[in-house]
Amino acid sequence: MLDEVEITKLIVENYMKDLMEYADLDVAIVGAGPSGLTAAYYLATAKKKVAIFDRRLSIGGGMWGGGMMFNKIVVQEDAKHILDDFSINYERFGDYYVADSVHSVTSLAYHATKEGAKIFNLIGAEDVIIKNNRVSGLVINWSVIGELPIDPLSIYAKYVIDATGHESEVIKTLVRKNNIKLNTPTGSIEGEHSMDADTAESVIVDNVKEVYPGIFVTGMAANAVFGSPRMGPIFGGMLLSGKKVADEIIRRLS
Amino acid sequence: MLDEVEITKLIVENYMKDLMEYADLDVAIVGAGPSGLTAAYYLATAKKKVAIFDRRLSIGGGMWGGGMMFNKIVVQEDAKHILDDFSINYERFGDYYVADSVHSVTSLAYHATKEGAKIFNLIGAEDVIIKNNRVSGLVINWSVIGELPIDPLSIYAKYVIDATGHESEVIKTLVRKNNIKLNTPTGSIEGEHSMDADTAESVIVDNVKEVYPGIFVTGMAANAVFGSPRMGPIFGGMLLSGKKVADEIIRRLS
Amino acid sequence: MLDEVEITKLIVENYMKDLMEYADLDVAIVGAGPSGLTAAYYLATAKKKVAIFDRRLSIGGGMWGGGMMFNKIVVQEDAKHILDDFSINYERFGDYYVADSVHSVTSLAYHATKEGAKIFNLIGAEDVIIKNNRVSGLVINWSVIGELPIDPLSIYAKYVIDATGHESEVIKTLVRKNNIKLNTPTGSIEGEHSMDADTAESVIVDNVKEVYPGIFVTGMAANAVFGSPRMGPIFGGMLLSGKKVADEIIRRLS
Amino acid sequence: MLDEVEITKLIVENYMKDLMEYADLDVAIVGAGPSGLTAAYYLATAKKKVAIFDRRLSIGGGMWGGGMMFNKIVVQEDAKHILDDFSINYERFGDYYVADSVHSVTSLAYHATKEGAKIFNLIGAEDVIIKNNRVSGLVINWSVIGELPIDPLSIYAKYVIDATGHESEVIKTLVRKNNIKLNTPTGSIEGEHSMDADTAESVIVDNVKEVYPGIFVTGMAANAVFGSPRMGPIFGGMLLSGKKVADEIIRRLS
Amino acid sequence: MLDEVEITKLIVENYMKDLMEYADLDVAIVGAGPSGLTAAYYLATAKKKVAIFDRRLSIGGGMWGGGMMFNKIVVQEDAKHILDDFSINYERFGDYYVADSVHSVTSLAYHATKEGAKIFNLIGAEDVIIKNNRVSGLVINWSVIGELPIDPLSIYAKYVIDATGHESEVIKTLVRKNNIKLNTPTGSIEGEHSMDADTAESVIVDNVKEVYPGIFVTGMAANAVFGSPRMGPIFGGMLLSGKKVADEIIRRLS
Amino acid sequence: MLDEVEITKLIVENYMKDLMEYADLDVAIVGAGPSGLTAAYYLATAKKKVAIFDRRLSIGGGMWGGGMMFNKIVVQEDAKHILDDFSINYERFGDYYVADSVHSVTSLAYHATKEGAKIFNLIGAEDVIIKNNRVSGLVINWSVIGELPIDPLSIYAKYVIDATGHESEVIKTLVRKNNIKLNTPTGSIEGEHSMDADTAESVIVDNVKEVYPGIFVTGMAANAVFGSPRMGPIFGGMLLSGKKVADEIIRRLS
Amino acid sequence: MLDEVEITKLIVENYMKDLMEYADLDVAIVGAGPSGLTAAYYLATAKKKVAIFDRRLSIGGGMWGGGMMFNKIVVQEDAKHILDDFSINYERFGDYYVADSVHSVTSLAYHATKEGAKIFNLIGAEDVIIKNNRVSGLVINWSVIGELPIDPLSIYAKYVIDATGHESEVIKTLVRKNNIKLNTPTGSIEGEHSMDADTAESVIVDNVKEVYPGIFVTGMAANAVFGSPRMGPIFGGMLLSGKKVADEIIRRLS
Amino acid sequence: MLDEVEITKLIVENYMKDLMEYADLDVAIVGAGPSGLTAAYYLATAKKKVAIFDRRLSIGGGMWGGGMMFNKIVVQEDAKHILDDFSINYERFGDYYVADSVHSVTSLAYHATKEGAKIFNLIGAEDVIIKNNRVSGLVINWSVIGELPIDPLSIYAKYVIDATGHESEVIKTLVRKNNIKLNTPTGSIEGEHSMDADTAESVIVDNVKEVYPGIFVTGMAANAVFGSPRMGPIFGGMLLSGKKVADEIIRRLS
Repeated sequence: MLDEVEITKLIVENYMKDLMEYADLDVAIVGAGPSGLTAAYYLATAKKKVAIFDRRLSIGGGMWGGGMMFNKIVVQEDAKHILDDFSINYERFGDYYVADSVHSVTSLAYHATKEGAKIFNLIGAEDVIIKNNRVSGLVINWSVIGELPIDPLSIYAKYVIDATGHESEVIKTLVRKNNIKLNTPTGSIEGEHSMDADTAESVIVDNVKEVYPGIFVTGMAANAVFGSPRMGPIFGGMLLSGKKVADEIIRRLS
Repeated sequence: MLDEVEITKLIVENYMKDLMEYADLDVAIVGAGPSGLTAAYYLATAKKKVAIFDRRLSIGGGMWGGGMMFNKIVVQEDAKHILDDFSINYERFGDYYVADSVHSVTSLAYHATKEGAKIFNLIGAEDVIIKNNRVSGLVINWSVIGELPIDPLSIYAKYVIDATGHESEVIKTLVRKNNIKLNTPTGSIEGEHSMDADTAESVIVDNVKEVYPGIFVTGMAANAVFGSPRMGPIFGGMLLSGKKVADEIIRRLS
Repeated sequence: MLDEVEITKLIVENYMKDLMEYADLDVAIVGAGPSGLTAAYYLATAKKKVAIFDRRLSIGGGMWGGGMMFNKIVVQEDAKHILDDFSINYERFGDYYVADSVHSVTSLAYHATKEGAKIFNLIGAEDVIIKNNRVSGLVINWSVIGELPIDPLSIYAKYVIDATGHESEVIKTLVRKNNIKLNTPTGSIEGEHSMDADTAESVIVDNVKEVYPGIFVTGMAANAVFGSPRMGPIFGGMLLSGKKVADEIIRRLS
Repeated sequence: MLDEVEITKLIVENYMKDLMEYADLDVAIVGAGPSGLTAAYYLATAKKKVAIFDRRLSIGGGMWGGGMMFNKIVVQEDAKHILDDFSINYERFGDYYVADSVHSVTSLAYHATKEGAKIFNLIGAEDVIIKNNRVSGLVINWSVIGELPIDPLSIYAKYVIDATGHESEVIKTLVRKNNIKLNTPTGSIEGEHSMDADTAESVIVDNVKEVYPGIFVTGMAANAVFGSPRMGPIFGGMLLSGKKVADEIIRRLS
Repeated sequence: MLDEVEITKLIVENYMKDLMEYADLDVAIVGAGPSGLTAAYYLATAKKKVAIFDRRLSIGGGMWGGGMMFNKIVVQEDAKHILDDFSINYERFGDYYVADSVHSVTSLAYHATKEGAKIFNLIGAEDVIIKNNRVSGLVINWSVIGELPIDPLSIYAKYVIDATGHESEVIKTLVRKNNIKLNTPTGSIEGEHSMDADTAESVIVDNVKEVYPGIFVTGMAANAVFGSPRMGPIFGGMLLSGKKVADEIIRRLS
Repeated sequence: MLDEVEITKLIVENYMKDLMEYADLDVAIVGAGPSGLTAAYYLATAKKKVAIFDRRLSIGGGMWGGGMMFNKIVVQEDAKHILDDFSINYERFGDYYVADSVHSVTSLAYHATKEGAKIFNLIGAEDVIIKNNRVSGLVINWSVIGELPIDPLSIYAKYVIDATGHESEVIKTLVRKNNIKLNTPTGSIEGEHSMDADTAESVIVDNVKEVYPGIFVTGMAANAVFGSPRMGPIFGGMLLSGKKVADEIIRRLS
Repeated sequence: MLDEVEITKLIVENYMKDLMEYADLDVAIVGAGPSGLTAAYYLATAKKKVAIFDRRLSIGGGMWGGGMMFNKIVVQEDAKHILDDFSINYERFGDYYVADSVHSVTSLAYHATKEGAKIFNLIGAEDVIIKNNRVSGLVINWSVIGELPIDPLSIYAKYVIDATGHESEVIKTLVRKNNIKLNTPTGSIEGEHSMDADTAESVIVDNVKEVYPGIFVTGMAANAVFGSPRMGPIFGGMLLSGKKVADEIIRRLS
Repeated sequence: MLDEVEITKLIVENYMKDLMEYADLDVAIVGAGPSGLTAAYYLATAKKKVAIFDRRLSIGGGMWGGGMMFNKIVVQEDAKHILDDFSINYERFGDYYVADSVHSVTSLAYHATKEGAKIFNLIGAEDVIIKNNRVSGLVINWSVIGELPIDPLSIYAKYVIDATGHESEVIKTLVRKNNIKLNTPTGSIEGEHSMDADTAESVIVDNVKEVYPGIFVTGMAANAVFGSPRMGPIFGGMLLSGKKVADEIIRRLS
């Protein structure tokens, strides 16, 4: 006999166990797009306690729709090994690899969670916690509350990653609310420039940096913060920057 | 050197290749929720040409949010083998298995597409094609057009599956627009009854039927069409009905 | 030193403890307006396990705004003892007692919760559970999810009270989804008639009944279901019907 | 016999009596959240003529939803005596006290109004009155008018308290419309910094000040105006700052 | 010296005096369009206590915009004397008289109020009061409250006039909520037919009737309730029906 | 020297001249989609006084977007001569002709207006005029007024054509507001059936009929009114039915 | 026999005659609130060709709702003669005169139009015409077009009056789009200060000035442009400033 | 027999062929208003590969509605030859030519596409591509995606024309995202001034310039970027500037 209340309790208790366990993290990632998911996968593989917070019900960011709703993605040669790490089906066209975007994004999320990364969907980061001039955690809230006056909660993290795309939302909040300088040429958010795919892909991995003590940028947020060009309709740099930020933080946590 | 236009062309051409290839299907599934994805997986494994059409950008239906946004799902013993088929991580609590909902839904979608099922996201089914008193295909359109007067296109399918949940949208359109009788006790849509998890799970697999020549129902749509109770916060029946509809159609296509 | 994560955990754990504890209730009330709050107070005073579910963030129903935003309420002589039970300030004008509406509604909620009634705000009842032709619980969900496809959870209750006002939402769902007959003259929802304060106040307490096994109506829902007139801008009947439904259920639970 | 028009008149007349009486106040508080309600309680206890104006139908601000809709609040040791003043039920966990948020907020409002504070819900403060370089009252209007061009009315007050939370709406309007300097380090609104609960709680009571002749800030508005950090999910400072602003104004009015 | 609070009090007190005075009326008119305003004028001239309730801030109904925003109106010969009663400027073209619509509608409202009719703008009629099978008053509320749960107030009237145009809102509510028969051929609302100006103008004055004890219809509501054709872009019948309903009620009140 | 007011006057006067001239028509077409435009072209070529009324700013109906925003249209062999009449560029694929949809729709509108048909954009038909049991004209209004209470104007026409697509808006209004029987099998609107392109194209020209004295249907409205299947993504039948209705009316007007 | 099309033509032709006649004005007033209507009345009385343009369907600005929807207005002694000029009913309270707001605003509009002022409702001023560094007319458009890309028309005027209230919309557009200096202390718009009724009323008439060649400000726009305080809930200054601007322009036009 | 899927394939394949072919252009025009369409026509006539991208379903910009929805346009003598090039019907009034606006805009689009220009409707330009300090293409996306996170695609063009009207959207994006100087007096966008039709028409053709390497402005965008006055309700300058930009680019491409 199925008991509805027993099932209800199992759901609530197991979620709460996760929420309690992940309230004090090695790494908190904001944004479950391709770069954030890739970072989560490699961090989880290295046995770090990592969680992603994403405002949407269904994570994945801008990867679902391919280019202009044509749900295919393209990856260049030097990121092909990441497709292999995630067992993604692809077809080769010269130096480019074409994959299905729904297949690719679900593979990233499936493998990241398979390895132990936790994804909190429907939860956004309203703000950060700053202790002694270092980002030390996130102020989180359900995204569905809209304009309702509902207070947030907080979680701690040794490192925070802003993987919110070209909006770079976490960094924007950090800069807007505090008198601080980022680790960028001008100390501010430089802003994304117009598209130049070749330049953009060549600098994105370099732009993956700790822009203020305790917080890194990755993916499109990295180029936006450092004033590099917008990326073209190609995903290699996104994936590589996700792996780069994971490697960098794994190194520091050791 | 990355060439933006070359990348653009690869995306467009490969999407169009898919669209052309999947315009004449063995099975067209409407709705990429848990039941539709499960069906697609087993159909693809059996080498059937199968595609899912889903109005949302990010498929998965109601599975992302677990129960009340607590992102866990529960599956009972008799559906546990499906969790294993999809390599989903779970924890056992007596006769129940608890899994992470984001992990589970991305696993369903990843493995279905890995096996060759094609998912067309952002595309809904406006209507069906009826030839000689048999559903013979779908009238499809981009969901993002909203109220804009944009005409649809059409695809053929040997079988259509309505996996749109308790709205049973395809069946509703079929009944509303044509003078037909369904293969239900009254010939009409019976409507979902209030919750009774035990009864609901016990009948859902039986309700998976060809309700009109060429079209099956599965998942919550099955119980809604046959006037069975609403299901509780448990996913076994959803997954089993997905497998059932696949098995049934595979048998007929042989 | 204040520890943000410690505080976060206290909030989450204590809420979850409540949610677990109140998943199996003596009485589940839907709607935290004047009638529902009054019922909850008297049930809690009698040591029944009672919880109210209300879709709004800030419970109280239509009592905050008095009449036409003029935040005063009027109570007639025969309900005056309820004002006294709740220590509400009032001024007497002949047979009428005038009180501040904000003061009154917060008194109802304060005293009900003081006595141990639990209020779950932001949670609505999507549906009921029916076992063996008896309402046995509620299907609940966050109200803030709007159109997002998020599944509900369920709780059990020995008795459910529909205190949702003249919409009588729970009864409407019960009738719409199941082939059942209510304990009313026609077996259906009769619908509220136009205003006639005198008649309305005289019948409301009589209308407080178990309209289907396991579910009672109270307050405006009672008059709406039994086809009585709309009440005038006076609250005595609302409060008295809340006490009546509590008394009736206490008697049955004994 | 109940007479609908008699009841109507009692409501209208008693509301108007209040509106006339409270048009010339000792203290006008804008915002009926935890800090404003606490201030109103202690001011009313000291027999000051005090009214709160709040845009919402159902006052209480951000206190209803606890943290992230989990409706519990936490208060630290040094504010515990305020819980006792309001007869709020709580449970102790080390140095923290956990209470139900619905119970707590209705207790604040109930006891404040019990002592004689008047709450005008659905009414917001569009602007202030300035006479001889001193804030001398409020320009008030119904909040429900939306974009309709409806003129406001005005009330006088010896002191105004901005208790509108981190938006500090009254101070913002004061600064935006007049060439004045606030009593802050820079003379302007400093803006809330990111979260640091420990620092925030330690400075909030100090930040309760008369920032311009005739107007005080309290609660989150105090930290926002003085550039202190955002508070964590804990309510001690909110309550203490409400008591502080009351004590300070009582002293001046003597 | 101007005293803001003194002015505030004068506004509030004088409005309340009106509201009290007009809570018990000879005639309550719902809808301040051309027909309702005309009726109010002639009723006030005959010294009847009459008030109009209109949901909009700025009354006048559909008369402001002339035809298709070309702000002119046309009146035929047999209604010309009403233009004269209201001192409206016009120009003659054969049997037709053309006037400015803004000029005309403000003249109707100005002269009606000059004669003592009271207009309550922003207030709609939610329902009627029925005592002993006779409409005995209105249940009124601010229109600006939108979806907020705010209770109404009530007023008494010897006669109610539905002048809400082709929606005939009051009659619709009356019929929907009560099991009654109207004084029409079928006992129900017949519904407006397509346009036929000649027929419509010839029957509208006949359709001005007491359709249920205590309530009359006038203007477009009269034709809608009696199933007559829609009127053309001409206002004679509107004005004449307003005068007719006034004359009829004056006769009965004598 | 350019004189702004002189230009203003030329625009207003010439528009008004058209509006006066076309207030009494041979044929009034509602809906400027492909079928309505085709009809207008052939009627204008035959020197009939014809005007189209369309609610949108930019006429053309559903033809702009091709199929699913892929802006191409397909026409079958038997309608190819209409492409030629309109000098539309196309490419041949077997029995099908493919043309650009933007090119095609602008050609229809350009040539129809070149021949003297007048298009009133932004104007919809709210209702019809009925005199002696015959549709004798339209009740028209600006579509941009939304919910504003603005009265319509009227125009006469010897024949009205409903070319509003599968909504068949004019016929719907005609049936809803009047007790009449259409010239269809059941006397009512039959409703569009699901797609069957072959059947749909074969019956559409037959369905072009005078369904009630004075009013014809064409295009998708014809199939919707007669209960025929939905048309596939092909335009031959649309164009042919437009020509058919023109021919039929020209014959009757002679 | 009534002829719908004849009536249609009378409406269109007479409106167009007005539009042509008033395309070249002595005075164009933007905003038909109390100040603009008063100005129009005195200008028309002096036989000037004057028109008001107002975005709303029903003109009158913020005067309909009295204070906070209590539909009464107050006028002080020195403006009492204007009430008399408009034959407005009032009651005296010391130095204040209280009138009904609906009665007052319709009187202003009725008498202004009676004297020959033309009101174009539903038409706003998008921009001004500037010739040789002088405002020479208005760029006007229907307000109902919303976001639709529809071009405006233009009219000439010897003088323009910005009577748009504290938004001072025309002056804002003038300053934003051109490099000009206003005739104010700083050459810019100073902005309205917080309320001080006494000061506001004493300066408003002085603030009525030609702020740039060809354009005057009046009413609340005058105080907003000159940085004076917001007015209290009293209308004397509004009416007097309307008369002042009329007198000033009449003098110049002589 | 009509085959729905065959027709579907023809539409998709032919659209894709266009999209592939026009991904590398001589000239990319953003905005299909009168100036952009005119430019496209003359470029296509000169055998350049040219495409227009427009966010709307139905292109034509602000030309459909004439002036204030009165659908006529006026053209002055010196642009009359362009009306002739497009075979547009007109009537002469002194130095002005009046044409129907629907006829005119469809003629521009029809003839431009007839000559081989491709119009991509429903597609907007999100950004530009910049290579070596030269605009080298566009970043394009479907306009219907609204807020959905869907990535764009890119196309190359030897020259880009901003024909987006007075918003000059492409230039605004170019300036906002990159640190560049335009070829204008100040190096920035100067902004449109108030209306002065005579001046505006005399400078618009001069303002047609390459404002940054690879990108031209035309139509209202030209005057907006160069700080010239707004144009009056006349279209000559629009058409002439479209021809000018075509001539200029043809010269450079040779």
